[in-house]
Amino acid sequence: MTSQASFDPQAFRAALGTFTTGVTIITTRGPDGAPVGVTANSFNSVSLNPPLVLWSLAKSARSLEAFSNHQHWNVHVLSAAQEGLSGRFASPGEDKFAGIELDEGISDAPLLPGCTARFQCRTAFSYEGGDHVIFVGEVHSYDRSPEPPLVYQAGQYAVAARKPRTELRLAAPPPPECSYTEDLLGYLLGRAHYQMLHALRRMLAGDALDEANFFLLSVLCIRDDLTLDELNAFVSYTGIEATAEMMAQLEGRRFVACERRGRQNRYVLTADGREVALRQIALAKAQEDNLADKLGVGDVMALKLMLKRLVAATDPGLPDLWAPR
Amino acid sequence: MTSQASFDPQAFRAALGTFTTGVTIITTRGPDGAPVGVTANSFNSVSLNPPLVLWSLAKSARSLEAFSNHQHWNVHVLSAAQEGLSGRFASPGEDKFAGIELDEGISDAPLLPGCTARFQCRTAFSYEGGDHVIFVGEVHSYDRSPEPPLVYQAGQYAVAARKPRTELRLAAPPPPECSYTEDLLGYLLGRAHYQMLHALRRMLAGDALDEANFFLLSVLCIRDDLTLDELNAFVSYTGIEATAEMMAQLEGRRFVACERRGRQNRYVLTADGREVALRQIALAKAQEDNLADKLGVGDVMALKLMLKRLVAATDPGLPDLWAPR
Repeated sequence: MTSQASFDPQAFRAALGTFTTGVTIITTRGPDGAPVGVTANSFNSVSLNPPLVLWSLAKSARSLEAFSNHQHWNVHVLSAAQEGLSGRFASPGEDKFAGIELDEGISDAPLLPGCTARFQCRTAFSYEGGDHVIFVGEVHSYDRSPEPPLVYQAGQYAVAARKPRTELRLAAPPPPECSYTEDLLGYLLGRAHYQMLHALRRMLAGDALDEANFFLLSVLCIRDDLTLDELNAFVSYTGIEATAEMMAQLEGRRFVACERRGRQNRYVLTADGREVALRQIALAKAQEDNLADKLGVGDVMALKLMLKRLVAATDPGLPDLWAPR
Repeated sequence: MTSQASFDPQAFRAALGTFTTGVTIITTRGPDGAPVGVTANSFNSVSLNPPLVLWSLAKSARSLEAFSNHQHWNVHVLSAAQEGLSGRFASPGEDKFAGIELDEGISDAPLLPGCTARFQCRTAFSYEGGDHVIFVGEVHSYDRSPEPPLVYQAGQYAVAARKPRTELRLAAPPPPECSYTEDLLGYLLGRAHYQMLHALRRMLAGDALDEANFFLLSVLCIRDDLTLDELNAFVSYTGIEATAEMMAQLEGRRFVACERRGRQNRYVLTADGREVALRQIALAKAQEDNLADKLGVGDVMALKLMLKRLVAATDPGLPDLWAPR
């Protein structure tokens, strides 16, 4: 326990930062009519009847005068896509509203588009709060969109992975002596990957590509004209080793053409090969959209973000499939 | 835009709920000295100097008298593991503090263990807030732990997947006509799975088990004494089809023993087989711990939660590996 006499502002702020928040931009008009806006995560709801919300603003803020004098202000709960906007309104200086087409609101306070929710308010009270002023506003109008909200935790932006309302178990509770459970990350990753691939394969029964062929065509779909070695540099981490025989088979099915240049065979995708690869990719995208419907757009965003962070952290040094050449 | 006259309380609450929060339990003592506590997500920081925080409490709350009369209260920022505690303190009735061993604080306000952060406060102001009272407290002492915090969004508990501070890209920005990018969920899942497996295999070079053998031994490690058909019911979704020849090979390496009963061959793990499987599983767990260090414990929790939700949503009807029999 740290007692007040020894409060280190940075450590105290870090402890407060463990409380997760959304991110808002709050806007009003200055005495000169110019639009004013600040990023704030000190927003919260207060009362349903009357409908009241609050937030606090540093007494040292340049916008204090505007918010103290103008009764009308709008709270924008930012969407996950508005991280850049949050940064822009968090730092002073530049013209924060440049290039933003404002929506029409019930007052003259600027109303930003693309948010998860918006609350158009009028100051009900303003209260003393140490080095901040607490503004309590009555909500006169609000709206919301299906955009997943931006989250802020411990000084970093984040996206929320929501828990189901009831406990989620894939299997019966395992006996305590069990060597691993459904909670092992490697098990979950494998099962998730193979289930997705399994479902994809069933949809593709007509094309009857096995996993190895699917991966090879997917690589060629992005990066054509590869030697066997170059192909393997992209796929061998999966345990698949492309051989001349496998490629000959794909040639036989007219998915791939082999061009002999000098002493090297180079493989290119045929129109048929591209078509079958694109069909698979379209189905994989449909599968993802379907999951976003079921699990939530923001939740799938959280999953992909974490997969990407995992991939970056465990990259064995794969060549960049998308690099220009 | 919904204007105030037509505010539907449920829709208004839902719009407010898009603003993400942490979850706190706030405790004090009643006039009779009994411990009092409520779950609140209306907490927020206000001021650094002096250190002030605020939260609001419904005027109809049974605990209002206690918080109005007793100056000392503690804010507990709940950890992801304390979802149950949140539920307990959110509903009236039972003895909320039953079975909880309290920590020693600077006042008599109950101090709960196991939290992400705790703030021991004394009321500085209490303000009018419609159907709620806003309590502003001066923080006299605080502490924090590395426990990842519990998150609340749109009426559901959640865990935060944090974004890196700089943009995370695995590859060069792809040309716009690209058929898929690193953002395709299926690509990310496959790449994450195979990279993890690839790293595991390198650590296991001595054991030299291929993917199929690894999966078969992992299944037998949890559920022994299976026929070939039963084994395949667990693994065939991965594209692996266990054959009598593969099993004979595992028998040859003395990882598996085959017991002939009636007309059926049943496979059991040998001591050697169990040892090699356990070594792999131990390494997979070490790999997961290492990732949690790199990516954050809460972030890996978010990843596993979403993988589990994905697995549940795409389950082709696999038998329960852990079911008692």
